Amino acid sequence: MKKLFNDIHVQAVMMDLRVGLEKESQRIHCDGTLSRLPHPDGLPDRKQQTSIQTDFSETQVEMITPVRETHQEALDYLAALHEVVLRTMPEDEYLWPLSMPPTLPEASEILIAKLSDEKEVSYREHLATTYGKSRQMVSGLHYNFEFGASLIQALFNAQDQEEEVTQFQNELYLKVARAYLRYRWLVTYLFGASPIAEAGYFARPDQAPQGAIRSIRNSSFGYTNVANLSVPYTSLHDYTQAIERFVAEGQLLAEKEYYAPVRLRGAKTMSALRETGIRYLEIRNFDLNPFAPYGMSESQLTWMHLFLLTLLWMDEQDYDRARGDQYNEWVATSAPDEALSDTLYKEGQMIFDEMQEMIHTCHLPQQMQAVYDRYRAYLDDPNLTLSAQLYLATEKGQNQHDFALQLAQDYAFLAREKPYQLAGFRDMELSTQILLFEALKHGVDFEILDRSEQFVMLYHEDHIEYVKNANMTRKDTYISPLIMENKEVTKLILDQKGYRVPRGVACSSVEEACRYYPKFASVPMVVKPKSTNYGLGISIFKEPTDFESFQQAVQFAFEEDQTILIEEFMPGTEFRFVVIDGTLMGVLKRVPAHVVGDGVSSIQELVAQKNDHPYRGTDHRAPLEKIQLGPIEQLMLKSQGYVSQDIPKQGVTVYLRENSNISTGGDSIDCTDEVHESYHQVAIDAVAALGATICGIDLILTAPQEPVTEDNYAIIEANFNPAMHMHVYPYQGTSRNVPRAVLYLLFPEVKPTVKTR
Amino acid sequence: MKKLFNDIHVQAVMMDLRVGLEKESQRIHCDGTLSRLPHPDGLPDRKQQTSIQTDFSETQVEMITPVRETHQEALDYLAALHEVVLRTMPEDEYLWPLSMPPTLPEASEILIAKLSDEKEVSYREHLATTYGKSRQMVSGLHYNFEFGASLIQALFNAQDQEEEVTQFQNELYLKVARAYLRYRWLVTYLFGASPIAEAGYFARPDQAPQGAIRSIRNSSFGYTNVANLSVPYTSLHDYTQAIERFVAEGQLLAEKEYYAPVRLRGAKTMSALRETGIRYLEIRNFDLNPFAPYGMSESQLTWMHLFLLTLLWMDEQDYDRARGDQYNEWVATSAPDEALSDTLYKEGQMIFDEMQEMIHTCHLPQQMQAVYDRYRAYLDDPNLTLSAQLYLATEKGQNQHDFALQLAQDYAFLAREKPYQLAGFRDMELSTQILLFEALKHGVDFEILDRSEQFVMLYHEDHIEYVKNANMTRKDTYISPLIMENKEVTKLILDQKGYRVPRGVACSSVEEACRYYPKFASVPMVVKPKSTNYGLGISIFKEPTDFESFQQAVQFAFEEDQTILIEEFMPGTEFRFVVIDGTLMGVLKRVPAHVVGDGVSSIQELVAQKNDHPYRGTDHRAPLEKIQLGPIEQLMLKSQGYVSQDIPKQGVTVYLRENSNISTGGDSIDCTDEVHESYHQVAIDAVAALGATICGIDLILTAPQEPVTEDNYAIIEANFNPAMHMHVYPYQGTSRNVPRAVLYLLFPEVKPTVKTR
Repeated sequence: MKKLFNDIHVQAVMMDLRVGLEKESQRIHCDGTLSRLPHPDGLPDRKQQTSIQTDFSETQVEMITPVRETHQEALDYLAALHEVVLRTMPEDEYLWPLSMPPTLPEASEILIAKLSDEKEVSYREHLATTYGKSRQMVSGLHYNFEFGASLIQALFNAQDQEEEVTQFQNELYLKVARAYLRYRWLVTYLFGASPIAEAGYFARPDQAPQGAIRSIRNSSFGYTNVANLSVPYTSLHDYTQAIERFVAEGQLLAEKEYYAPVRLRGAKTMSALRETGIRYLEIRNFDLNPFAPYGMSESQLTWMHLFLLTLLWMDEQDYDRARGDQYNEWVATSAPDEALSDTLYKEGQMIFDEMQEMIHTCHLPQQMQAVYDRYRAYLDDPNLTLSAQLYLATEKGQNQHDFALQLAQDYAFLAREKPYQLAGFRDMELSTQILLFEALKHGVDFEILDRSEQFVMLYHEDHIEYVKNANMTRKDTYISPLIMENKEVTKLILDQKGYRVPRGVACSSVEEACRYYPKFASVPMVVKPKSTNYGLGISIFKEPTDFESFQQAVQFAFEEDQTILIEEFMPGTEFRFVVIDGTLMGVLKRVPAHVVGDGVSSIQELVAQKNDHPYRGTDHRAPLEKIQLGPIEQLMLKSQGYVSQDIPKQGVTVYLRENSNISTGGDSIDCTDEVHESYHQVAIDAVAALGATICGIDLILTAPQEPVTEDNYAIIEANFNPAMHMHVYPYQGTSRNVPRAVLYLLFPEVKPTVKTR
Repeated sequence: MKKLFNDIHVQAVMMDLRVGLEKESQRIHCDGTLSRLPHPDGLPDRKQQTSIQTDFSETQVEMITPVRETHQEALDYLAALHEVVLRTMPEDEYLWPLSMPPTLPEASEILIAKLSDEKEVSYREHLATTYGKSRQMVSGLHYNFEFGASLIQALFNAQDQEEEVTQFQNELYLKVARAYLRYRWLVTYLFGASPIAEAGYFARPDQAPQGAIRSIRNSSFGYTNVANLSVPYTSLHDYTQAIERFVAEGQLLAEKEYYAPVRLRGAKTMSALRETGIRYLEIRNFDLNPFAPYGMSESQLTWMHLFLLTLLWMDEQDYDRARGDQYNEWVATSAPDEALSDTLYKEGQMIFDEMQEMIHTCHLPQQMQAVYDRYRAYLDDPNLTLSAQLYLATEKGQNQHDFALQLAQDYAFLAREKPYQLAGFRDMELSTQILLFEALKHGVDFEILDRSEQFVMLYHEDHIEYVKNANMTRKDTYISPLIMENKEVTKLILDQKGYRVPRGVACSSVEEACRYYPKFASVPMVVKPKSTNYGLGISIFKEPTDFESFQQAVQFAFEEDQTILIEEFMPGTEFRFVVIDGTLMGVLKRVPAHVVGDGVSSIQELVAQKNDHPYRGTDHRAPLEKIQLGPIEQLMLKSQGYVSQDIPKQGVTVYLRENSNISTGGDSIDCTDEVHESYHQVAIDAVAALGATICGIDLILTAPQEPVTEDNYAIIEANFNPAMHMHVYPYQGTSRNVPRAVLYLLFPEVKPTVKTR
């Protein structure tokens, strides 16, 4: 086998893999006891998706990622699922971070998952009877691992024995599975993390191990089949037939009841698997890593990848299955900080040596060497292993309960602290993060197509939708954003359809501007540079003005830019109306960065206080930006006669910016219920006139609380890429979940039906 | 009235107007006789649109523009309608450029327009009986003129008498109409252009004028009502009632039979007009200007605007209607080159003086003064008038027929010379010009929303469609072009859906590039700078290559750019497949600029010969660009061992460019019927996979004539804004009218139904 890996084509694709993670966690109350509440209503319907499920008990949440091509992507997804679960659970509930369950109540109080599928319920009842409820309450992480198809193909091409790639692939996976069973003790040693059981787990003290051990879960005290079922891994045929026989004979209720550290996977039933062949391995002996917020670190997974590659790469020996089981039991039942026996140490060293040789021979990336180095040290120092770390951190298990509860609380806080962000995707735009959160919360899965471009694919069963920037979708026609992008065309169309739009022209010379004077002579007007910094060069004439003043304003504007704008001035307040699919979602006012005096604090202090708001952050990673005190703000203060050390009187508003952008510290204020509802219809109709489905349209209203008339409003512009997060997390006023509306527009099938009567 | 014009708000909007043109022309055979063919089949159905109609006879085409806000726009539209008509008529037919018809056949051979509306036909039969067919064969141009609503509103605001703007508006138009009837002789003098009738027009010599006159059409020999109907212009009520009475008494068959130099317009019937009020004037005494390809020049229209403004501006006198008619008859029946009488000259001077005063007082734009100056000179020199010019150009009318026929031929040639362009819109992209041409040809009207942005509105009855760049429409979803714009996402989706796409990565350092080597080690590959000039820095490895050669290629590429691309190399030929709404429209191959030797001509001469092709032009105003002989081409020649004076052997191909862009002189070759049709389906399906409706997709085919296999093609990219004109006017191969398909997609109602059986 090793020589196949000398082939450069094999090495080229050696790191290719596909991976999926399934992680179970018990829901607990903040007092550390098992939750007494049902699976949260707000989570997606367990019938209609696969990402968020319940395992054995109603309290045991299972989070399942789609298959991904890197560990990072799978972990990102798992992180996001955690946040969805934790933010949907009541505030006083957490997820228990250990494999061993928290203090368990009477068996009668452990509720089997309330699933609508009766077969699933009776299967769980069988498990409860056969294994006892306690044992079913243990949680773990299943690692579904697939070698890249390109790697298998390259190996197939490099060899000259097998004639069928499927058969060849079966052989590869069988070989790795046999080796895994033989050497899995090393995984238990490194990553075992279930030293102590909480109260209520062992029915009788004599059933429990003497003192702390490395992994209850991976030992004979843990989660194994009652009967010692011997399923051969000699061939796919033998494997599948053995399991089928155990089911036929009643030793297993279902094929899936076959618990093994590694299972051969690829089809739903054993008979189908025989046909399709092995597509991946399900590795099942991972304890939850309490030190990783999502139960597993990337470096653990990377080491597993190295380990599985090594098992593939190593020339096969006559693996003694019983010895593998025995070694694993030794390791699992030894004390967490106990050093390996000589025999085991040597065998561990042998495996690590093979691994090192493979890294060199196959020119694996530097990152693999780093992970190798990290875990090679564990072999020499048992105190580095996860079980030992947990054991030592909890005063040799004395306060494991408190320690775990504290972790649970910390992880819950982490997940809930910034509800506008989504773990794993915090580098993306907030609106996209919110949309992805809503997707998972409704059982819609996703894949990131281009991260920096905010390009995602959402899918639910067979239904696929592509979304960019959280609001560019299939639901808008192409011409509509092109219309909105062209402000002149937008105005032309709105004007043709009878809406009030301010007239305006762009000029590039004083002469040209002066020729337009008569057109604007009789209306209020604003003359301004096309682009301006803090309002320089802007003249507003709220009454019709004479030619001389106009000319002065034009010259003034040209001092700031080579192009100036002359526009009809519309007095009033600008509001952003967001319309989705003909429904008004929200009306938002943006107010320039400012503070209000309390008669005691300086402007500087008031800014600091205001910046403490949980929604304020930096770099657009929060719904509001922190107010700065830079040169622009100082200049703005100066223009009002302030310096930042001044103490404004109680109730006095001091502006730090002239522009109302949220990005420069402005406030977002939801005014949906404050503006007269007649404007809602104007916005809805104007958006329809532009043919748009998803649109933010800016209206200036002179009397927002009075009904619309022919001339008390004007439409300034329409946006095909409106910022959505500011409506969900406004500084003041009601939250409007615009991204959720986008999700429902794309996937009406996941919109909860309102129950009538 | 004059003092109202002192108001700056009036002056501000004084040039605002709305205008529509209706122009009639007789179709003729190239021998100068009236066409014997019916109204061309290829023109839009006369029932279903209003732009291209027939007037009295089947040979009399009428071209009608929509209402526009500048003369230029109306003339542009009229120019475009001309090209549609002329290009749809048989090659040996022209449009007669004079108001007076060409030599007429026997009356029995003059066919009344074959309209499906029986009322329209019997109305024309009545006209034939009442006026004789000859007289109905005279053509002219109707000028529908409306003062800007803003001007009327400003005048209304400035006055303090009328309380209703409608009534005020009626008074304004009535005043102008009365003044027009009184002074219209000036229009006849300046623009009259029907000095001589061709044979067959006058039934008897004694009915004809003695010798040439200024305007037969505007004289009593011309086109007036048989009975001298006196319709008063004192009030809208009087005007409408008089016409209604004449119809009731049988002196007119229909209200529209009332021929007058100016009619009051605004509603379909006189009774409706009384309700709605006068919206515009229909000026009917324009002879066709034979010196203008479309029958009327912009300066004539601008002068008319000035004239009508002057008539509005002048204080009203007691206009003597009879004197107006008499003066007009004098002018119309005097010789074309005869000077005005003293009385008329003085009156003309008075009007021009008023006009000049108005231009000064109201600060009209410089352009108006220029037009004033131009036509003021006509007053002093009758030889400048249109009629005199025609008279003098035709040896005092002796060879008017030949002269007119030559003009007809010239204008037809002008319209047909560059079929890929559209008069009035030649500054727009070719694809847009072709789409607009197809629109008019199918009775769909349009309005340009943003000329430089190629943004147009198409409309047909109540159906409106917005189009940008001739192919961005409501029929594509927004996400689809966003997918295509992102080449990585495009590849990802196509790959996920099972299409073959070449793998590729972009690298910004040698180290990064080298890390990717293994991924490409086993496939043919190309290493190239992200942007390159004439192929510098490109290395193609048609066979898998070793690391050293790869590294060299990387360094070579980095000498040309800071970012380089490593891509799987796909040998074969690239084809552009255009798919519209699931139908394959065309397959095009682009060949780099080249010439083929004839053994005699030098490269320079071969280039010049090739550049003679009617499709070759410059600046993207032709389907193909002329081949240049600049530094890039010289370098390319040099690399093949040539200089431009060399004479290549017969059949030898010499390339002038490496890239195959049409914009650098490449050839477009339609290959729709040459590539194996299995690729048609691949293109159609791949476009569907991207969710696109209008799409150009580029495939590399290794064996274009053989059926598609899993790996004999690759999809390079997809374009949401494919160049369409190159398919309509390919250098070689069959024309594929892609813009027409876009039109049918947008307006299925204008797609001709295929007659079955």
